[in-house]
Amino acid sequence: MDWPLFIIFLAACGAAATTGAVFQPGDWYKRLDKPVWTPPDWLFPVAWTFLYLALAFAAARVATIPGAHYALAFWAMQIAFNTLWTPIFFGLRRLGPALVVLGGLWVAVVGLLWALWPLDALAFWITVPYLVWVSYAGALNASIWLRNRHAVPA
Amino acid sequence: MDWPLFIIFLAACGAAATTGAVFQPGDWYKRLDKPVWTPPDWLFPVAWTFLYLALAFAAARVATIPGAHYALAFWAMQIAFNTLWTPIFFGLRRLGPALVVLGGLWVAVVGLLWALWPLDALAFWITVPYLVWVSYAGALNASIWLRNRHAVPA
Repeated sequence: MDWPLFIIFLAACGAAATTGAVFQPGDWYKRLDKPVWTPPDWLFPVAWTFLYLALAFAAARVATIPGAHYALAFWAMQIAFNTLWTPIFFGLRRLGPALVVLGGLWVAVVGLLWALWPLDALAFWITVPYLVWVSYAGALNASIWLRNRHAVPA
Repeated sequence: MDWPLFIIFLAACGAAATTGAVFQPGDWYKRLDKPVWTPPDWLFPVAWTFLYLALAFAAARVATIPGAHYALAFWAMQIAFNTLWTPIFFGLRRLGPALVVLGGLWVAVVGLLWALWPLDALAFWITVPYLVWVSYAGALNASIWLRNRHAVPA
């Protein structure tokens, strides 16, 4: 693997990770009406640490393969939408618009997997958990939005 | 040019542009002590519209060229840092941390230009205004931070 490439892709993930560190859930999130299948708080940083390392690894692994342009375009799209989601959800507390952003992120991740499939099996499979997590996060975002959309914003 | 690629890269820019639309400067920004060389408000959306179109064009133009991996890695890094800056500056109003993010963005843009130079002259030159603008934005962020760092946060 090309380590400088890995570091650059990991730096991009670092920008997305920073949103999670600076826009903390806090009391507002604790008080929201959430479904029983909401993951415990400790799982989020654990999951994202794995996902970001996997994403940077997958990108660095395929970047030098000829024909990787769609994979890298969708990779750029997913990291931008990923970075946008947290400030909309936890910063502005706009649950509906956050769901739209998650929809864009989901499309980008499906596109990324579609582009990775013919390039490299390991890069593809290590990115599958990301789609699972984003789908789960989308269902959670939708559920929280439906349960709280008539509540007075705090 | 590969139009689907252009659309994907433009969608990534759309995520960054959304931060500017949803985290509005407002009264807080108006009241900040700013240097005389602060651009008028109308210039920001005009400049960014050009810069995002140019960025998506440059990426789509070089993406299919063999050896474009560093350009696309730095492209992904710059769009993530770009998406992060506005929520930190206008959302959290943390001028110092925003300057750190802009430093990361600046490094990514220099890396992008370094990688574009041997690939394609047009992609390189159409990206140069982005470095000029980010450098200028960095100077502006630094100046506003120095002028207001002892003010009581609103």
